Order: sequence, then structure tokens, then C-alpha cells
Amino acid sequence: MNFQDEYSRLRDRIEEYLRNAVPEDVPQPLGDAMRYSLLAGGKRLRAVLLLAAYSLLKDDIETALPFAAAVEMVHTYSLIHDDLPAMDNDDLRRGKPTCHKVYGDGMAVLAGDGLLSLAFESIAASEHPKAMLLVKELADRCGTRGMVAGQCADLEAEKGGGSEKLLHYIHLHKTADMITAPMVMGLTLAGASDEQIACGREYGKDLGIAFQIVDDILDVTGDTAVLGKTIGKDAEENKCTWVSVYGIDQARQDASSYTENAVKNLDIFGDKAIFLKTLAQHTLMRVK
Amino acid sequence: MNFQDEYSRLRDRIEEYLRNAVPEDVPQPLGDAMRYSLLAGGKRLRAVLLLAAYSLLKDDIETALPFAAAVEMVHTYSLIHDDLPAMDNDDLRRGKPTCHKVYGDGMAVLAGDGLLSLAFESIAASEHPKAMLLVKELADRCGTRGMVAGQCADLEAEKGGGSEKLLHYIHLHKTADMITAPMVMGLTLAGASDEQIACGREYGKDLGIAFQIVDDILDVTGDTAVLGKTIGKDAEENKCTWVSVYGIDQARQDASSYTENAVKNLDIFGDKAIFLKTLAQHTLMRVK
Repeated sequence: MNFQDEYSRLRDRIEEYLRNAVPEDVPQPLGDAMRYSLLAGGKRLRAVLLLAAYSLLKDDIETALPFAAAVEMVHTYSLIHDDLPAMDNDDLRRGKPTCHKVYGDGMAVLAGDGLLSLAFESIAASEHPKAMLLVKELADRCGTRGMVAGQCADLEAEKGGGSEKLLHYIHLHKTADMITAPMVMGLTLAGASDEQIACGREYGKDLGIAFQIVDDILDVTGDTAVLGKTIGKDAEENKCTWVSVYGIDQARQDASSYTENAVKNLDIFGDKAIFLKTLAQHTLMRVK
Repeated sequence: MNFQDEYSRLRDRIEEYLRNAVPEDVPQPLGDAMRYSLLAGGKRLRAVLLLAAYSLLKDDIETALPFAAAVEMVHTYSLIHDDLPAMDNDDLRRGKPTCHKVYGDGMAVLAGDGLLSLAFESIAASEHPKAMLLVKELADRCGTRGMVAGQCADLEAEKGGGSEKLLHYIHLHKTADMITAPMVMGLTLAGASDEQIACGREYGKDLGIAFQIVDDILDVTGDTAVLGKTIGKDAEENKCTWVSVYGIDQARQDASSYTENAVKNLDIFGDKAIFLKTLAQHTLMRVK
């Protein structure tokens, strides 16, 4: 298996699926605003993780597509709201003007709200026997003790006093929870055992934290043109990041050890896990 | 049965349930912002409808409380986002400063996002055999072809050109969909037949439109102190309302006929429906 080919194959499947994921009869400009952000490209990491987790045990990834799409909808909604002037006030996302810059703040609020609702609508519409477990996992991880909790802590941390404890809370919830969710969802859907799901959950948690540390590093060392988003904003906004708390050398080391731990958790799946192991190592390579 | 006593009994049950509905471990100030708006009182119309619909067929309303709470969470989230400067820019809601006036715009965005997620989390946590059908109904009605679609049309209509067609679209989706959802959810939960659910749906639709017409009338004729919200904003903001399109006399007549139709739909439930029929008539009495 060539890693890049396999990643592209999964990403292309989800990309194709997403093209028709926003229903035709959503009124304008709401439908356009949702499509604008949902189809702005990106790595599709969360969807790829869900499909790859499902593929650890089953072959028919078609079955998993609506759920992978739901996870991308939740991720996109969080970006749209996060970019609002009331939150991070970002003008650029994936190299394009952010949703509110194009459609206005009010429509961007609604586009985010709409994508979050549509995620649950898509899961419910699947009528899959495991659908309720997936709603539970997604709602738990994206909600008030998951991603939204992390965003709250992130906003609060800007006021100063970014402790280690707070930093770990932010990275765990703001980022890792929505990396964990697709792993657990993909495995649940594929009928994994509790032990397998627990290992997938740990992989997601460690990968998620590694991923956010890498992001923190790139915000210092990266290039706006390459990353498609404004660089240096973390320091400017007094964000609580791995680099601000531990310094850049420690951040590089920690990204490495979290990645290593992530990889170990997948040993239970044997050779089938090569893709997900490689994926974790590739995340790290962005800052090596 | 005394209508007011029965309404108060149901409202008090939901009020009590909501007091502990936001989990203790939601970080601050997010938890407080969510509780501030969720516990700001109000009529609890949507929750009462769900409990009353359930009571048409079953007696143990305890079972229905988590779902009634979910509906109130969705309603509250929509108010928080609707009040934002990016949307309706309201300072006052139920006689108190709006969420963003107290907690800031960013935290208000998150409080709304959190409540929407928590609604689905609550339904999923119930593990009720009908839970998936309720997720579907709620997501459909609150989402991009339901309430959010109505809010989009409402925002667009401010730019001018409020036609009759647009007015009906706004009232149906912005308001009636989230009056219909609790009716359908309560009946589904209670194991109602398809015919009974269809009648409940029609009742909700007609009542929802009547309710919004009454609201439009009160925005012209009402009193800020009594209503707990700023009056006269519709005209100021060039909103597309029943009064602006049809005039106040026609609005009064239409509120009356929608209410009548709502009531008729409940004949299928016999004497059990007296409470819900009276409720519709009471809505109308606010402008008589």
C-alpha cells in the first residue's frame, strides 16, 4: 500500500460524497454559504480517519460515508463559528476568505448552525442499526464537555494565565475530541469489540494532541501561503499553545512522543493498521 | 380540568427538570451562559406541547421529560443566536439582558452551539427505543429545511420585498416547525399511530402559524414591560410580518382561522384533547 495513494483515495470518496451533501432545497444564500465552507477542500482528516477506522474491520466503505460526511460537517461548522469576529476573527481559511467575509456574519452563524443540524440529520437518515450510538459519540465529543468546552477554555485562556492544566484541557477537547470521535464512530459502525474501540479512542486522543502541537508549532514556523491561513496569530492573540507554555523544542519532542503512543495503540489491529500508523507519522513530518 | 393549573403543572415539571439539565462539569463561563438563557423562564410552550402530546396517549410524563428538555434547549439556542448583533441585535429577552450582553458575543455563540449539541446528547443518553426517530424529527425541524431555513429567509426578507409566499415560508419554518416537532416527538414517544401523528403535525403547523401571527400583532400593539422584549422592532428592521403584508385586521382574522383549524385536527383524540385545544385558544386570546 502506498500511503499517499490510499489517503487520496479516501479523501476523494468523501469529497465526492460531500458535493451533494447539502440538500438542493436549502434556501439561498444559506445553502451556498454552507457549501462554500464545506467544499473548501482541506485534508478531510476526520472523515479519512472514520473511513480508515471502519476499514480496519470491514471493506464496504460506502456504508461509512454518511457518517464521515457528518463528522466533516461538524468540523466545518466549528471552523465557521470559530472564524467569526466574535471569536477568532479570521479573514482567511484554507487560502480563501472565511464564510462571514463572503456571506456576512449573520449568515455565517446560520451556516454553522445548519451544518451542525445537518450532521445529526444525516446520521438519523441513514437508519443504520448503530446510528444511535453514533449520535451519542458525536454529540458527546462535539458538545459542552467536548469541542465546545475546549473552545470556551481557549477563549478564556486569551485573558492570560495559560497553565499546563489548561493547555492540556484545551488540546484534549478543542482538537483531540473531534479526532477521537471519527475513530470510535468508524469502529462502532464496523462492529468492533469494546477493547478495539478503547484502543481506537486512545489512538485518536494521542493523535489529536500531537496534531494540535504540530499546529501550534506551524503557527510559529509556518508560511501563510503554504498553510492557507494567517500565521503568527496565536502569539498575537495571546493564545495558550504548546509552544507558549513549553517552548518550541519541548513541543517538537512532545509531538513525537504523542505520535509514538498513538501508533502503539493500534498494534491490536495487526497489519491492517499500517495506514493509520503511517498517517500519524505523516502528521509529525510536517514539523520535522 | 382547569387549563391554567394544568399548564402550570406541566411547566413546573419541565422547569424543575431543566434546572439540572446543563451538566456540572461544563467549563465556566460556558455553563453559566447556557444556564442563564435556558433558565430565564418563558412560557415553555414547546416543552409543554411535547408533554401534553405524550399525555394524549400515556400517563407517565417522566419518560417524556428529557425530550421536552431537548426541545427547550434547541429553542433557547435559536434565541441566543438570533439575538446576536450579527443577527437581530436584541438587548432584551424575557425582561433580562440577552446572553451576549452578559457573557460577550463569542461566549454566546458557544452557548448556543453547546445547547444544540446538548439537545442531541440528551436524546441519545435516554437510550429510549424511539430515540432515533426523535433525533430525526428534531434535526429535520430545527435544521436547514426547518427553523434555520426560516431564519435565513427572515434575514433575507429584511432587504425588502416581503411577498406573501416568503411570509408563509418564514412563519412555517422559523416558528411552526419547532411547534410541530414537539407534537410529533411526544406522540411518537407515546407510540401513536401514523394517523394520530399526522393530526398532531397539522395541529402544530396551524398553531405555530397562529402563534407567530399573534407575535407579529403584539409587536405592533404590545407593551415592552409586559412582554419582556423590545416592541416595535419588526417595523424598524423592515421585517416581513403578517401585519406588514396583510394589515392588522386581516392578521387578527387569520390568527383566528389558523387557531380554529389547529383545534379541529385534534378531534381524533376525543376528550383527552381538551387541554391542547384550550391552549390554542389561549394563544389567540392574547390579541383579543
